[in-house]
Amino acid sequence: MALDAQRILARCAELAAHSEQPDGLTRVFLSPEQRAVNALVLEWMRAAGMEAALDAIGNCVGRYESAPPGASALMLGSHLDTVRDAGRYDGMLGVVTAIECVAALALRRQRLPFAIVVVGFGDEEGVRFGSTLLGSRAIAGTFDLALLDRPGRDGVPLREALQSFGLDPTRVATAAFAPREVAAYVELHIEQGPVLEAEGLPVGVVTAINGGYRFNVNVTGMAGHAGTVPMALRRDALAGAAECIGAVESVAGNALDVVGTVGRIEALPGAMNVIPGRVRFSLDLRAPTDAQRAAALADMRTRFEAIARRRGLALALEPVWEASTAQCDARLQAQLAAAVAAEGIGVRHLPSGAGHDGMALIAIAPIGMLFVRCTGGISHHPDEAVTVEDVDAGAHVLLRFIEAFEATSAAP
Amino acid sequence: MALDAQRILARCAELAAHSEQPDGLTRVFLSPEQRAVNALVLEWMRAAGMEAALDAIGNCVGRYESAPPGASALMLGSHLDTVRDAGRYDGMLGVVTAIECVAALALRRQRLPFAIVVVGFGDEEGVRFGSTLLGSRAIAGTFDLALLDRPGRDGVPLREALQSFGLDPTRVATAAFAPREVAAYVELHIEQGPVLEAEGLPVGVVTAINGGYRFNVNVTGMAGHAGTVPMALRRDALAGAAECIGAVESVAGNALDVVGTVGRIEALPGAMNVIPGRVRFSLDLRAPTDAQRAAALADMRTRFEAIARRRGLALALEPVWEASTAQCDARLQAQLAAAVAAEGIGVRHLPSGAGHDGMALIAIAPIGMLFVRCTGGISHHPDEAVTVEDVDAGAHVLLRFIEAFEATSAAP
Repeated sequence: MALDAQRILARCAELAAHSEQPDGLTRVFLSPEQRAVNALVLEWMRAAGMEAALDAIGNCVGRYESAPPGASALMLGSHLDTVRDAGRYDGMLGVVTAIECVAALALRRQRLPFAIVVVGFGDEEGVRFGSTLLGSRAIAGTFDLALLDRPGRDGVPLREALQSFGLDPTRVATAAFAPREVAAYVELHIEQGPVLEAEGLPVGVVTAINGGYRFNVNVTGMAGHAGTVPMALRRDALAGAAECIGAVESVAGNALDVVGTVGRIEALPGAMNVIPGRVRFSLDLRAPTDAQRAAALADMRTRFEAIARRRGLALALEPVWEASTAQCDARLQAQLAAAVAAEGIGVRHLPSGAGHDGMALIAIAPIGMLFVRCTGGISHHPDEAVTVEDVDAGAHVLLRFIEAFEATSAAP
Repeated sequence: MALDAQRILARCAELAAHSEQPDGLTRVFLSPEQRAVNALVLEWMRAAGMEAALDAIGNCVGRYESAPPGASALMLGSHLDTVRDAGRYDGMLGVVTAIECVAALALRRQRLPFAIVVVGFGDEEGVRFGSTLLGSRAIAGTFDLALLDRPGRDGVPLREALQSFGLDPTRVATAAFAPREVAAYVELHIEQGPVLEAEGLPVGVVTAINGGYRFNVNVTGMAGHAGTVPMALRRDALAGAAECIGAVESVAGNALDVVGTVGRIEALPGAMNVIPGRVRFSLDLRAPTDAQRAAALADMRTRFEAIARRRGLALALEPVWEASTAQCDARLQAQLAAAVAAEGIGVRHLPSGAGHDGMALIAIAPIGMLFVRCTGGISHHPDEAVTVEDVDAGAHVLLRFIEAFEATSAAP
């Protein structure tokens, strides 16, 4: 079928070389490193027979035309940005594999009754601007223009970052696709969890993308001298925050398939010999259903409030992000499952604990996802790994799915 | 007696205006702000009849000559640096009050059989270089020259910071006084605790400066995706650190007069959607006796190790600082107590929970301390406050003590 899994891995390695630090991989939205990978991806898209260009938000968008031309598209893709100190497959594998599948079609000059649009999203992780899915929301037409004024972690607002990147912030809306232009969105991605490995399967069909909340939690106590304020008289914001972190772990640990994470923490004033008067920590909470998610949050809030009351602290949750569970389309799941089975692989359906660009694309199209097994369930870490055999299996399943694709809506 | 408590408070306010941030007080070692206050303090020393100059580490040193000249000195003073977001009396009150006492002597042209040396120490808090008492250790001749290569929190090594300040790092040893040159070191300081306020007393005589440890605690787990790694499979370094912070609070809270504080914490990689793989937090532990201190540390270590073992984390304590309890000299305590009583004030002896420059000076001279009541026991905070009446009482007691001072050693 002319799919080359070794080339897919080599391209992932080539992308990973573009990082803000030499001894690891960090590539954030609209960075110089992203400019470099965009150039590579657009070149690969063109070499695979696509017309390709950067859109107004900085996504790489390539189109492999239908026969006859102008039909609505099967959209494939994933993201090109990373978390800090990331692995090299989360996101990139989906972009590179989609390009590989199109290249295989182009090699045999095979046109389909639908177009294929491959997107390398510029921002999914949200590291720079604290808001995820900026690339896919622009494509879905759900990008909130108020975000243009949001300062990034470097202090530069998104509007200025776009301009510095050579993009025109007033044209962001032009990145949007209309629903009639997209028959479906399907993404290949590493699982980022341990299920497929435990079951000895190279790929799996995703049922839903779990919803989530993110908050910043602000705790205010009273700063004081570390040597002179007796323990009983303290209102230590960090001691309170530490107890809250324990509550997050306990509530999530006692609920089925719920996960809660505190990934960031800052204590002020931040001197060894001063009792912290203020602490700010992040809370990321995800669950397979919106009801479970709301219940876990309510439980955490109750515990936080009790901790704050007992310790004489003020505590406030500042919402940063929320996403409902995004259900994968049943017909796309069935078509993906048929492609898996046709490759002689056992079919496993599983939910996604991580968020993905499909959470945004579901606004304009039915979504589907194919997971590829990763070693140890590890992701967002330099140890992230896949095998060439699994990548080969994933690429073959994806190409089979493309060739047999039938739009679930009335398109084209 | 020509002591002007209002002038003392006005001078503390004048010093507090020199801060790295406009809406609060932060003044670290060898900063532009410190250069500005040094100029003020040297000017006030000269106006009070002293010969005054900056020494090789950046302490302000003023000498009020003895009659006959050349006798050993009663050293008075405190520090001019602050913690972040500090109050305006911790340190500065002792320097300004000592100058006020010398000014009162100079006004009546009163010479004593011992000289008076007033020192405004450049570094006591240790904020910039993570090592306290740099100023008083240089004066005591116990300054570790290896510290010259230590980078500050801004990355600039102490050696370069001294050069930028106009000082010659090769001459640091010249700041040292010989033991025969210093008959005693006596410091006036705010209490930074609630004891004097509770007993309705403006001043108190210090019995000892509690010893302490400081460590950086490094916790290593495994980073991972916040959405996909089930709670039961995590090795979350921050969840482990949070439990350790609880253990610090619990061990210190259950031991008499022991205090334990985690003032700084950093979680890496530090993204909302990534489980922290590494955490570094500070531990400050103090106790009235060295035996209590060692026992509390052993208890904390045991708990830390159990937490790390249960959670599959690596944990290491990196010693940053240690100080034994510094006993105040019994004869100096008696002389201070006599001065307190002569002012018609009830005599209260109490230990110091905070560290002070006397911990360094004890290497070359007997030490004594006089505490002044502060509002609510608050220090290291913008709400730090004293009353003009208490400052007046402290200045009068200190001047009485100076006039009646008898060296406890054979000096002069």
